Amino acid sequence: MKAVTLTGGRLELADLPTPRPGPGQLLVEVRRCGICGSDLHARRHGDELADVLDVCGYPRYLRSGQRVVLGHEIYGQVVERGPATAGRLRPGTAVVAVPLVRRDGQVDGIGLSEHAPGGYAEHVVVQESLTMPVPNGLAPDLAALTEPLAVAWHAVNRGEVTRKDVAVVLGCGPVGLAVIAVLKARGVATVVASDYSAARRALAQRCGADVVVDPATGSPWEAIGGRGFVTGMPAEYTAGIDAMEGLARLPVPWWAAWRVLDKVGATSPRRPVVFECVGVPGMIDGVLAAAPLHARIVVVGVCMGADTFRPALAVNKELDVRFVVGYTPLEFRDTLHALAAGRLAVAHIVTGHVGLAGVADAFTALSDPEVHAKILIDPGR
Amino acid sequence: MKAVTLTGGRLELADLPTPRPGPGQLLVEVRRCGICGSDLHARRHGDELADVLDVCGYPRYLRSGQRVVLGHEIYGQVVERGPATAGRLRPGTAVVAVPLVRRDGQVDGIGLSEHAPGGYAEHVVVQESLTMPVPNGLAPDLAALTEPLAVAWHAVNRGEVTRKDVAVVLGCGPVGLAVIAVLKARGVATVVASDYSAARRALAQRCGADVVVDPATGSPWEAIGGRGFVTGMPAEYTAGIDAMEGLARLPVPWWAAWRVLDKVGATSPRRPVVFECVGVPGMIDGVLAAAPLHARIVVVGVCMGADTFRPALAVNKELDVRFVVGYTPLEFRDTLHALAAGRLAVAHIVTGHVGLAGVADAFTALSDPEVHAKILIDPGR
Repeated sequence: MKAVTLTGGRLELADLPTPRPGPGQLLVEVRRCGICGSDLHARRHGDELADVLDVCGYPRYLRSGQRVVLGHEIYGQVVERGPATAGRLRPGTAVVAVPLVRRDGQVDGIGLSEHAPGGYAEHVVVQESLTMPVPNGLAPDLAALTEPLAVAWHAVNRGEVTRKDVAVVLGCGPVGLAVIAVLKARGVATVVASDYSAARRALAQRCGADVVVDPATGSPWEAIGGRGFVTGMPAEYTAGIDAMEGLARLPVPWWAAWRVLDKVGATSPRRPVVFECVGVPGMIDGVLAAAPLHARIVVVGVCMGADTFRPALAVNKELDVRFVVGYTPLEFRDTLHALAAGRLAVAHIVTGHVGLAGVADAFTALSDPEVHAKILIDPGR
Repeated sequence: MKAVTLTGGRLELADLPTPRPGPGQLLVEVRRCGICGSDLHARRHGDELADVLDVCGYPRYLRSGQRVVLGHEIYGQVVERGPATAGRLRPGTAVVAVPLVRRDGQVDGIGLSEHAPGGYAEHVVVQESLTMPVPNGLAPDLAALTEPLAVAWHAVNRGEVTRKDVAVVLGCGPVGLAVIAVLKARGVATVVASDYSAARRALAQRCGADVVVDPATGSPWEAIGGRGFVTGMPAEYTAGIDAMEGLARLPVPWWAAWRVLDKVGATSPRRPVVFECVGVPGMIDGVLAAAPLHARIVVVGVCMGADTFRPALAVNKELDVRFVVGYTPLEFRDTLHALAAGRLAVAHIVTGHVGLAGVADAFTALSDPEVHAKILIDPGR
């Protein structure tokens, strides 16, 4: 089969043997495979990321000396079932899959390890138990977005955002745009999005952002001003004394009243939920410095290398920083079904298609945010 | 009155005018005032901390050029009530107070600003609405621990630790010891504590730690091994596939079963809650590297300056980092009453007493963890 290999940073079209599905596995003919930001990372910072994942207990992440096939945002059709499969998914079924595969007792990330070739190819092997049929005749381009949107779906879960909350999305690349779409699908009232690129801001609006900001000329923090956040310690200190003086006038003990208010959440500070989807050095410290007190920051952008920040800033503002990378199979399925129900306004995220021969150029093209967000590979082109 | 002033890093015994309580304020005769780690920070890194607090919206934190009176861990007796006070607290009442005071519409941290002289003195002005009577004839030394223990009480709340959880406390200085005592008072089953100092480890045991570790020869992470935490990605990946294969054999759809399991928390990864109570550069990155996947890290130790960490590590391990500094008035009261009920095993934290004349030497003595944890000032000495 035709496939694109990555070796020492070079992407090349190659002829590889078509893989065989092992026990519990399916062979899928790839119809679409998204090019993910982490694929771009893998090409340029593969060894650095491999070192990090080694510390995380996964020593089999790709390294620059290896020949690997990238691609973990896979949509395709079942063509063959391996031994010991349950047989739920017949040949011809349109599917998406959580990109993990088990072979010889080892589990690997599909398209992220030399042991598990990915979807930049005509065929790919997936794990039957993690493969889901695409419902409602969902269009291939949208189905292929299931995986990146599941990351966003999970990030929103981890942010514990409720409908009444204000969410701030920093960075409107594919990850930020996916987060915006999920937030709006989940009914979050106010989503403020920020990006230096005019094209990306336009996409953010199409994904449902209520307010878009160019950080070169405005501030997402000003845009959420006046929404009841505690932006400085004097305000917090004053509110504390005001509250205590008010409660002292009640006929019940202040602490009994406070406990009731605690129970219903009335004493909890209002927290904006910030999604950091940029992932460049200095970004996290910038958010710590600029965010209101008590903000909850969900870090979805992967910043490579070491980064610097001021812990005293985060401590004194009582900030939460939650780091996210994956999703559960149920989150993956919920995302797929939200897509199929038309609840995720993400069609415009796809800005281009290439055949396998066009992958190397697509990697180059993705460096310009004014032109591209998500490019899908269609091996049939 | 006698007081200890801090000017340009120098602590000096001085005669100052006794302050007058303004509207809504009380004058308190100080019986005990704890020396807090943040007082030590204030002496050496005052300007740096002032810069950070300026970013946080509090521009009135003490600076090295100013003459200030430190002390915010205050226990004393009411001696005089200012105008417009409610009169709940009669002269002679033993009290503790949340260390905030309002004057001319400005709210300041007592003992942390030149505008609000603190408890390193014979008298201090506090806000009546934030002042609480000490119940049960609680001993002065214990009552004086209310404030630092309230920080720990709040940290445990922010960590959302439940009784069944495993907590890891890194650093057994006064903050770490307070966290250990609060965790055990709240019924947390397993508390692992770690410190290089043998004396501090002995104190940790007296505060209730179930396991103590010397990080020079052991590892707190090994001590929590085998308790069901996900320590590496292969385990997580494998568990995901095993779960899906198991659910596929049920007569109901896997996703329906998963949703039920989600509801009861059965699919949530087991998270150890880690309290970082050291606050030196590199500590946070070390925790990110060593902690199990999905760990929740509560940062209570204030690391001054910029610190370096690897975001990709935190992202790939899906870690939570929650920074804490304060507490609510209710948390302060709950702490006081837990102390008065004898639920907090903290008597041994107090390792020394000094009069006002001994404060400068006490600051020096506190640098040796083998000798001291918490020194209380007793202005009557």
